[in-house]
Amino acid sequence: MRKLLLLSCSTIHGSGFLEYAREYIYEFFTKNGVKEVLFVPYANVESLEGYTGKVRSELTKWGFQVTGLNEVSNPIEAVGAAQCIFIGGGNTFLLLKRLQEGNLLEPIRKRILQDGVPYLGSSAGTNLATASINTTNDMPIVHCENFEALSLVPFNINPHYIDSPPDSKHMGETRETRINEFHALPDRPPVLGLREGTFLHVRGDVATIGGIYPARLFIQGKETTEVPSGSDLSFLLKQ
Amino acid sequence: MRKLLLLSCSTIHGSGFLEYAREYIYEFFTKNGVKEVLFVPYANVESLEGYTGKVRSELTKWGFQVTGLNEVSNPIEAVGAAQCIFIGGGNTFLLLKRLQEGNLLEPIRKRILQDGVPYLGSSAGTNLATASINTTNDMPIVHCENFEALSLVPFNINPHYIDSPPDSKHMGETRETRINEFHALPDRPPVLGLREGTFLHVRGDVATIGGIYPARLFIQGKETTEVPSGSDLSFLLKQ
Repeated sequence: MRKLLLLSCSTIHGSGFLEYAREYIYEFFTKNGVKEVLFVPYANVESLEGYTGKVRSELTKWGFQVTGLNEVSNPIEAVGAAQCIFIGGGNTFLLLKRLQEGNLLEPIRKRILQDGVPYLGSSAGTNLATASINTTNDMPIVHCENFEALSLVPFNINPHYIDSPPDSKHMGETRETRINEFHALPDRPPVLGLREGTFLHVRGDVATIGGIYPARLFIQGKETTEVPSGSDLSFLLKQ
Repeated sequence: MRKLLLLSCSTIHGSGFLEYAREYIYEFFTKNGVKEVLFVPYANVESLEGYTGKVRSELTKWGFQVTGLNEVSNPIEAVGAAQCIFIGGGNTFLLLKRLQEGNLLEPIRKRILQDGVPYLGSSAGTNLATASINTTNDMPIVHCENFEALSLVPFNINPHYIDSPPDSKHMGETRETRINEFHALPDRPPVLGLREGTFLHVRGDVATIGGIYPARLFIQGKETTEVPSGSDLSFLLKQ
């Protein structure tokens, strides 16, 4: 039943907000009969109103209606009635904390997995669709009671995945090192590194990589591999 | 009473482990009469033994004895008897979690602030010396019950501080953006960005920037400033 479109990011260099993904999002919405989107702006540190407004301004141009979760009097009811849920990027810790405080995780999860409501995620919203936020890139600016996410898929994603610049003189950990540190701990799920412009599409038990670049797949105890756009990753759903 | 040497990192590009900081560390130890160091390797994801061995191998060459907190039967007693405590880098979340689980935060804090035991921190060990780990760069590979750190100083540090490359096409947040997101939340302490090769020295109520590069100081509601090496930052201690 599940229908997920998980974007690495909302914007790529030299392109407007959501512009690069317009075709994918449009197809995802229309194929699934979506006309109205419930947008969750909770990852934004500055202005929930401003963020919802930015998304509405774009999606209405494409023919879709947008309601912000910040605009409804009862968020749990709004989730229960949503035709489609879109969680945008920002700070993943802040996003998770606000959803935890609003008791919204389980209602959203139920809506997606049991009712088959389409889910669009971007950046932090993509982290949130996975098993946990353990592989976010964000700064932990707020504390969350735990790091468990929606578990719409049984593995982790690292959005904005970036290759290590070969001539860097910076000694901070590279992205690959960070993910390998996660996998140095026992019993950790796979991590799918999604480069900017790349996405994961899930329909029921079928998962496919799409977009501009290959993804990079880290599985504990196995060699890391490049996954070209168009590849089937359905085996990752069977954990 | 407090005596702190807080390094941005243990290694700079093109130089061996702790090599760039040898002069500063040597002076810090000898001025404070340190001959034996209790090393805390908890931030390391791979091997506590290996990490302690690496530090011992270096510091014994300089004439100091090293015991690893991983080598003692009673860590709390070892902290109580330590002549100097050195917390090394790695993953800040793992470090904090292990110290929380071992009930070691308060004993270490007491030792440094009440007994005047010298504290050397590097990277994650520098994060840990501050008010909280909210401004670490690390991936949250484990969950901690809270993000409160040792509060040896009443502000935050961002180690491995890095300027935004002017020609980057990556859309992930820059370090400056991340720190500004932290400051978008109410009542947050200052954040001192320490570039690699730079350190903060604290003796009692006097704090000084040292090392190769200027530091970068973020104070909520004020303009961000560059702080040249040699500058006095004692006002940051009076919060």
